[in-house]
Amino acid sequence: MALKSVPQKIAQAIDVELMSTSGGFSIDQLMELAGLSVAQAVQKSFDYKQKPSILICVGPGNNGGDGLVAARHLYHFGFKPSLYYPKQPEKDLYQRLLTQCKNLSLPVYKEVTGDLVEKSDIILDALFGFSFHGQVREPYKEIIGFFESTSKPIVSVDIPSGWDVESGPTTEVGFQPDVLVSLTCPKSCVSHFKGRRHFVGGRFVPPTLAKKFNFDVPQYPDGDQVVEVPIK
Amino acid sequence: MALKSVPQKIAQAIDVELMSTSGGFSIDQLMELAGLSVAQAVQKSFDYKQKPSILICVGPGNNGGDGLVAARHLYHFGFKPSLYYPKQPEKDLYQRLLTQCKNLSLPVYKEVTGDLVEKSDIILDALFGFSFHGQVREPYKEIIGFFESTSKPIVSVDIPSGWDVESGPTTEVGFQPDVLVSLTCPKSCVSHFKGRRHFVGGRFVPPTLAKKFNFDVPQYPDGDQVVEVPIK
Repeated sequence: MALKSVPQKIAQAIDVELMSTSGGFSIDQLMELAGLSVAQAVQKSFDYKQKPSILICVGPGNNGGDGLVAARHLYHFGFKPSLYYPKQPEKDLYQRLLTQCKNLSLPVYKEVTGDLVEKSDIILDALFGFSFHGQVREPYKEIIGFFESTSKPIVSVDIPSGWDVESGPTTEVGFQPDVLVSLTCPKSCVSHFKGRRHFVGGRFVPPTLAKKFNFDVPQYPDGDQVVEVPIK
Repeated sequence: MALKSVPQKIAQAIDVELMSTSGGFSIDQLMELAGLSVAQAVQKSFDYKQKPSILICVGPGNNGGDGLVAARHLYHFGFKPSLYYPKQPEKDLYQRLLTQCKNLSLPVYKEVTGDLVEKSDIILDALFGFSFHGQVREPYKEIIGFFESTSKPIVSVDIPSGWDVESGPTTEVGFQPDVLVSLTCPKSCVSHFKGRRHFVGGRFVPPTLAKKFNFDVPQYPDGDQVVEVPIK
């Protein structure tokens, strides 16, 4: 049975609570755990022993930060990550995460081409998360255009970028990722996901928090930070 | 073959570099990864399906912080952690990590008794790390006294607390942990370790950093944050 999902407002309230004085988590901690769970989901979905290349498409906010963390872990897992990171905010957290990637000599691109997409074995979509609303603007419109047309497998972080957090595909954005990694818990649009594998990452949620916001905490295996869950 | 080890000064220089502007890591990130690697080492060393109880002995500094993170992960891994945390610094980071443990309803003790030690299945020694020097003072002298006398298995974080970072056991402290989890890389005193299993956690080290400070980065398996290494 598929897990419960939550709408945008509840997802935002969960994040606020986790990072409040009573929740105690810092953004650095949560992003580290989110990025690690994404990297583990990628590792479970593709054969890392083949050292696949992965193009990590990094958005301007926290979803992008998760992507930067995932890039570092994927390097250490044996993948060959490159970053497409068109807008690089000054915010200290993102700058530090980018520095960590640069210290691993990961290529960083500010512009994307069809060739860059097509020569990658896997695409990681870390553009927008559950805070996204409205229409996709450039430069992100271009890369999402490639998501629509490519036959390369796409892994989306939290939600497929450009989808409506609740109602899913829009008249503008309708691509289906191969793999979806829901962070903390699935968002409402998950019911429109028709990909191959669905994972949840969030092995830090206190049971009291899950109860308060009425979402499920799945059973994680061994020491993993991610668990595969059934697709509706 | 055992890994290379580093003396106290090099361990300190590595930490400074990791958290410098050129290294880019925050203490929150490094502590999260350290605590997770400790929890994974414990999980690999004991049968978590039996839901063993583990007494986490938390020191006043970063080694204690690693212990607080490990406590949270161990809870989510199915262990039953309790904390012995006699001195709880005001520092925001430690307070937040403690809040995260309290939100899981983990018991927190400020005083220790022989009974508390003996009714635990496992002891986690997260008192002092590689910065320790000099003599052990109260209240830590009491708990280390229990480490000396108990037959319960002890897991030490980074170094066995009270040992000299370089020369190992002293005239005052000579207990042998069952399991040692070296963080980033083993410290010189590891050559005196005669326990059962030795793990290294630090799957975030850029190869350039390991080369600069002349230590080995072991091959980690799958998505693990920890790897078992041979004992000298």
